[in-house]
Amino acid sequence: MEKCIFCQIVVGEIPCEKVYEDAEVFAFLDIVPVNAGHTLVIPKKHYENIFEVPDELFGHLGVVAKKVAHAIKDGVGADGVNVAMNNGKHAGQVVFHAHIHVMPRYEGDGYQLWKGREYKEHERGEVGEKIRKQIR
Amino acid sequence: MEKCIFCQIVVGEIPCEKVYEDAEVFAFLDIVPVNAGHTLVIPKKHYENIFEVPDELFGHLGVVAKKVAHAIKDGVGADGVNVAMNNGKHAGQVVFHAHIHVMPRYEGDGYQLWKGREYKEHERGEVGEKIRKQIR
Repeated sequence: MEKCIFCQIVVGEIPCEKVYEDAEVFAFLDIVPVNAGHTLVIPKKHYENIFEVPDELFGHLGVVAKKVAHAIKDGVGADGVNVAMNNGKHAGQVVFHAHIHVMPRYEGDGYQLWKGREYKEHERGEVGEKIRKQIR
Repeated sequence: MEKCIFCQIVVGEIPCEKVYEDAEVFAFLDIVPVNAGHTLVIPKKHYENIFEVPDELFGHLGVVAKKVAHAIKDGVGADGVNVAMNNGKHAGQVVFHAHIHVMPRYEGDGYQLWKGREYKEHERGEVGEKIRKQIR
């Protein structure tokens, strides 16, 4: 199996611009940033996506993402911050080692977010029920 | 001050399609979904954005978002899931009560993610240093 690029970054086999590290979590600059300072927050241990990361570690990843969001806001003077995690190829995940994007945003930087659509009659209740049934 | 729409949803003054609730966190279907099942996970107490939510609660919000991501994947058979949080008007935040989007995604559903650009020489190291200095 090919070595995971993020696992190699964590152990220093591939260089990166690290911004944070603790016993379980590592954060470094994305090399193709939305805006300068765009950071990836990852578990040191390899998990593919949100579905695989244990709950306690996922909570800690979130707290580190918050810490990094603060540091980005103050460090590069962002007007706002997007935090995002893509899980699965069809959700835009490219590297299959779980990672949270923390992205500085500026007024008029030209990025567009998703555009939604409205539910059809009864659809919302039916969909809600499908999801409620799967809450564990 | 105008009443916050999400605070009104939490107390039932505005109806919603609720999918999860515990002592601190509430989750309900976004009425303008990217795809059916798009859910918002929010703290019951009013905080404006990621910068205001206390760490412990933010970690718990993340764990609930993970729980909801699982339920969406299984409930509506999504191919992937995006988790995203927009903080600040210039990051696309529209309702100023902190919320995490959990969005089912499908192959070929047509949504595009951000496109990055490369750093200029030396820029990455300089930006990394600015952010490291602000890590608290």
